[in-house]
Amino acid sequence: MTPHKIGIIGLGKIAQDQHLPVIRANSNFELLAVSSQRGIAPEDARYSFQDYRDLLGLKDVEAVAICTPPQVRHHIAREALLAGKSVLLEKPPAATLSELEDLRQLAHKVGKTLFTTWHSQYNKAVEEAKKALAGWSIKRLQVTWKEDVRHWHPGQQWIWAAGGFGVFDPGINALSIVTRIMPEPVFIKAANLEFPANRDAPIAATLQFQTGHTDGNLQAVFDWRQTGPQSWDIEVETEAGFALKLAHGGSCLEIDGRLVVKEEPAEYQGIYRRFDALLTIGRSEVDDAPFRLVADAFMVGKRVQVEAFEE
Amino acid sequence: MTPHKIGIIGLGKIAQDQHLPVIRANSNFELLAVSSQRGIAPEDARYSFQDYRDLLGLKDVEAVAICTPPQVRHHIAREALLAGKSVLLEKPPAATLSELEDLRQLAHKVGKTLFTTWHSQYNKAVEEAKKALAGWSIKRLQVTWKEDVRHWHPGQQWIWAAGGFGVFDPGINALSIVTRIMPEPVFIKAANLEFPANRDAPIAATLQFQTGHTDGNLQAVFDWRQTGPQSWDIEVETEAGFALKLAHGGSCLEIDGRLVVKEEPAEYQGIYRRFDALLTIGRSEVDDAPFRLVADAFMVGKRVQVEAFEE
Repeated sequence: MTPHKIGIIGLGKIAQDQHLPVIRANSNFELLAVSSQRGIAPEDARYSFQDYRDLLGLKDVEAVAICTPPQVRHHIAREALLAGKSVLLEKPPAATLSELEDLRQLAHKVGKTLFTTWHSQYNKAVEEAKKALAGWSIKRLQVTWKEDVRHWHPGQQWIWAAGGFGVFDPGINALSIVTRIMPEPVFIKAANLEFPANRDAPIAATLQFQTGHTDGNLQAVFDWRQTGPQSWDIEVETEAGFALKLAHGGSCLEIDGRLVVKEEPAEYQGIYRRFDALLTIGRSEVDDAPFRLVADAFMVGKRVQVEAFEE
Repeated sequence: MTPHKIGIIGLGKIAQDQHLPVIRANSNFELLAVSSQRGIAPEDARYSFQDYRDLLGLKDVEAVAICTPPQVRHHIAREALLAGKSVLLEKPPAATLSELEDLRQLAHKVGKTLFTTWHSQYNKAVEEAKKALAGWSIKRLQVTWKEDVRHWHPGQQWIWAAGGFGVFDPGINALSIVTRIMPEPVFIKAANLEFPANRDAPIAATLQFQTGHTDGNLQAVFDWRQTGPQSWDIEVETEAGFALKLAHGGSCLEIDGRLVVKEEPAEYQGIYRRFDALLTIGRSEVDDAPFRLVADAFMVGKRVQVEAFEE
């Protein structure tokens, strides 16, 4: 089998830290080209461009991974699909749900693979949690996603602009685990969104969920003001009596206090294994559930103003 | 053919002004039952309940029209579908997009008809506008939806609560026309949402749209503070040179200044004709495009605080 010839569009932190090394280590892919507005040119990419349209003009590129900020993804993905390329989208897959729906329809029309990636879903602990919860009713869900924005997003202005998602940028990772493991769909019943006085995106949020069956005690807390220890934990209690905890962003699973899975995250390895399979069988995988919950939270959320945030 | 035996759940203003008389005048429907928390009992309904679950318990009811406020629609619709009833949903079809997606999947699973209604789409002028625009590129779109909330929603507190949609309650009617007539999908590029200091829902909004092809001059203005003449107009200018105006909420169509359609609105007659057909052929019609644009506007919109609103 010849490897999938792939291009990366947008060479920011996530592309350099994850996509590049994982593609290099996967012999089913060949890094053919990159495009970077800032002109970053990895030595092993045969072609490097500043303008992504030059990359899309390469006949040999079968697929592209779009790692730009979300605001421009739809436009680039549209051109890529129309140029006959399959498309992998970093999270969140677009700036709006309508843009994603448009890409879904376009991919179907042109017969190319469209793949929305939610990296947190690619942990063994998440898969085990899903299996453990299947078929049970949920009594309690507590999502705690607290991190220090100054550490994780230094100088990133776009995340604070309207449409920049704010604390939902990490929060959507938690939601992508929730939609994956919960045995029935969850809905946003109410939300509290805390906007710093000088910013157009929330720095913290509390979400109340419900399911079709229960108004139970289902909650998420996202906070970007956490200094000291960081928390990326999801606790679930079932009607059956057992309790489960996914800790460290989904990489560890405890059931009733017993450590069941603990492994180094290999999320992007999983993403590219899946992309390989999707390209080979010619299918798309478009999961909009986490993104829909974010839009729902913004739609029903009560906005409260909090202290200005200075970096 | 025996008529479809129908029940109405929720007997507020829209049910009394539109659903009841239109069902009565359509011989393909028979009003079998109603449920009203306030105990409203029309003389010609064979059964009247205060609790909708009693209505759902009637074996003869084939379909229900859910005319409650949107916050409780999902819960009631879920029970209705599980009770084997087909469901018509007033607009907006649910409190969140995730709730609507859940109903879509449930209707498919139980094999019942689910019908999301967008009453403004049922105007002849809207259909003619759609036909006139098909295949053209759009140069300009100007939506102007300005009405007096004191006149149209006196004392309705839920529309001002978080999740109550505010000015998007009428604005979604405009969006349902836009998604219907535009020859290609539109996306929210930016939005400005004006929240009164004492309310949790916007009183006014400005939306900037874009399409896959153009960043052109595509705009909507919603305002609930309009006294005097009310405006529900949509103007579209095509690259081909002709301009089109849908006025009075979609009931009149002018093309290049020439009046092409002018007729009394018969929106709900059209809705029930369509519901009759859907029930008869056993199909669902779930259109989430207008609702998605509202969620997108809340997600990317910049919030600004304006003067408190007192009724």
